Amino acid sequence: MPGPLSGYKVLSFCRALSGPFTTMLLCDLGAEVIKIEDPKGGDRTRFVTPQINDVSTYFLSVNRGKKSITLNLKDERAKKIVFDLVTKVDVLVENFRPGVMARLGFDYETIRKHNPKIIYTSISGFGQTGPYAKKPAYDMLAQGMGGIVSITGPEDPKAPPVRVGASIGDTTASFFGAMSTLAALLEREKTGEGQMIDVAMLDSQVALCENAIARYFATGAIPRPAGSRHPLVAPFQIFPTKDDYLVVIASNDDLWKNFCTAADKPEWVSDARYGNREGRLAHHAQLEKDMNTVMRSKTSAQWTKLFEAHKVMCGPVNNIEQVTKDPQVNARNMFYEVDHPKAGKHKLVGTPMKFSRTTCETKKAAPELGADNQEVLSSVLGLSEEEIETLRKEKVI
Amino acid sequence: MPGPLSGYKVLSFCRALSGPFTTMLLCDLGAEVIKIEDPKGGDRTRFVTPQINDVSTYFLSVNRGKKSITLNLKDERAKKIVFDLVTKVDVLVENFRPGVMARLGFDYETIRKHNPKIIYTSISGFGQTGPYAKKPAYDMLAQGMGGIVSITGPEDPKAPPVRVGASIGDTTASFFGAMSTLAALLEREKTGEGQMIDVAMLDSQVALCENAIARYFATGAIPRPAGSRHPLVAPFQIFPTKDDYLVVIASNDDLWKNFCTAADKPEWVSDARYGNREGRLAHHAQLEKDMNTVMRSKTSAQWTKLFEAHKVMCGPVNNIEQVTKDPQVNARNMFYEVDHPKAGKHKLVGTPMKFSRTTCETKKAAPELGADNQEVLSSVLGLSEEEIETLRKEKVI
Repeated sequence: MPGPLSGYKVLSFCRALSGPFTTMLLCDLGAEVIKIEDPKGGDRTRFVTPQINDVSTYFLSVNRGKKSITLNLKDERAKKIVFDLVTKVDVLVENFRPGVMARLGFDYETIRKHNPKIIYTSISGFGQTGPYAKKPAYDMLAQGMGGIVSITGPEDPKAPPVRVGASIGDTTASFFGAMSTLAALLEREKTGEGQMIDVAMLDSQVALCENAIARYFATGAIPRPAGSRHPLVAPFQIFPTKDDYLVVIASNDDLWKNFCTAADKPEWVSDARYGNREGRLAHHAQLEKDMNTVMRSKTSAQWTKLFEAHKVMCGPVNNIEQVTKDPQVNARNMFYEVDHPKAGKHKLVGTPMKFSRTTCETKKAAPELGADNQEVLSSVLGLSEEEIETLRKEKVI
Repeated sequence: MPGPLSGYKVLSFCRALSGPFTTMLLCDLGAEVIKIEDPKGGDRTRFVTPQINDVSTYFLSVNRGKKSITLNLKDERAKKIVFDLVTKVDVLVENFRPGVMARLGFDYETIRKHNPKIIYTSISGFGQTGPYAKKPAYDMLAQGMGGIVSITGPEDPKAPPVRVGASIGDTTASFFGAMSTLAALLEREKTGEGQMIDVAMLDSQVALCENAIARYFATGAIPRPAGSRHPLVAPFQIFPTKDDYLVVIASNDDLWKNFCTAADKPEWVSDARYGNREGRLAHHAQLEKDMNTVMRSKTSAQWTKLFEAHKVMCGPVNNIEQVTKDPQVNARNMFYEVDHPKAGKHKLVGTPMKFSRTTCETKKAAPELGADNQEVLSSVLGLSEEEIETLRKEKVI
């Protein structure tokens, strides 16, 4: 079975990460994604290192399974091709700075004249409206301005702020972009009407911090970074062992009793500070010190065995290599191999969206620049060999 | 206009975060979400602190706009109500540990007999298959095992690992859960068939780390935490100023020249180490030291003014209070107020999914336990007052 979005076509004016990750999600779900790139080099992430045989792994990962066509969008003939393509697709996704699509003549009002049923999804740093609308944004700006940095990192107030190590400033907006696009397609099934979607990276960061913001609204206390500790329950964090680190979850009273037995600390069950949930949270700093001492007495393997026997939840802090070798992750088929004309065979991360009836995996590599010019222009738009050759010679494509 | 999912009904067997956040996303999009809770206290997050008039802010935030009905799922009469409800809804979402729904008699094979068109979405820690399937998971386990912790935090290899400050171990699975549910609903429009979806928190963490994993596959080098620094470009990070911190993005050569002018460091433009993109990345450690010195010479306000004049991208590291006061975030209506019978008027975080035609905001507060028993049982299932009263007396609801 093909993916659930099989038959849906997406036209992508996306570069870098927030837009391409959105169309990657739609592509993973089975949609046909046609990526429009500038004939002079294309998406700049094609040049990001590291590379395999001069092909960027960044580009290979986020653009797997898509088609690439080149269009010089300032040329009138390219504009006509865009308008023709717009009539053939269900969705348009773009992540230019607000205003750029209008300057190119591709604003929503113009596009909908060519296809009133189209879902037109704009992903931007700050959104299409508001005082910062025209400002450019990058992942780190969204992470910094949206609050996640202010609650991530070491507990020490003097420690410099840290970033979330994956570009969630971009990809959180991609999740909201893909979800809202799917919801609009579903609504179109009932009404027959398209619409425009306006997703901002900054709004998406704010949405991600809902719990911290709700706490602030209720108490007026400003949440702070808490190391590896959960702000609301304890112990629910990472502890050092004799040889490594281990995540330990013993935050409810039953788990806590189990932990005390496993750690041979029966006195902590009736300890006034640690005996109940509220106490452990109130005394988390001392609890952390005491548990660090205990946890350092055995290796991670020893603790894991003990915790399994005593039904305490624990798990390793895996590095990226360990993640790729994890038996569960592999049993779930989270890695797959594709072949690329230049990069050759290479492994990619699969999708977590597992369907019982419609499969959901992209089995093609990312495209070379303009790899699908011929196919898209001839089979989708019906252009002749000669017409395509002329466009090529005159650098329209 | 109502939200795009207006008219869709979702039956939720969800507790804690990964499941409730999934149905929150669907509810924000306009779906009617009926949350089933145990009559004895309900979802345990109802007891998480901080609270407003004894109502948990955690619960209020994630369950806004939903309906609550109570059912003692071990009672045969409650099971019959579930099967009756299943025939009335489009989607079922559950986040029990794999096996629990089957023990209750609500596995997918049984449920589909009552409604073959249903989309049955399971969110779990490790997925329904594989060697860890039956293990319980919590946010911190997924974060630790999925790789994000290993690339987040201070660059110092001796620094203890830190958590991402929001519970993305849960909510990333929620994004994939909501997306796959929407895609399956869309596919059902064509085929008329339902299906089961199996989303794991661990898989979702792996998907979030795609870039780090692609780099590891290509080079064999294991990505590490890099403070606030982007692993692939520089400078693209947070720097200390005289009075605070500031995100500075000057990673391409044009932006770098602008930065050097703004910072009165013209010699850095032609510096062999810093003059081009590759050099700045290779010498990022020295670059960071040099830039720290320069950046500490002025306040954030002074730098912001200079950078605006010289077209260098910068932005603050906002704490949660500053986020709630940010003019852009407020212009985007990211906060709204609802009223709750006990908690009273309180503010919530809105949705980043902004549609041109179908609005998309939940305007109701989270429900009190069983608040919608009467309405759902009478208007959806057609039970009489007497029947409902009997169920209540006999503790079925």
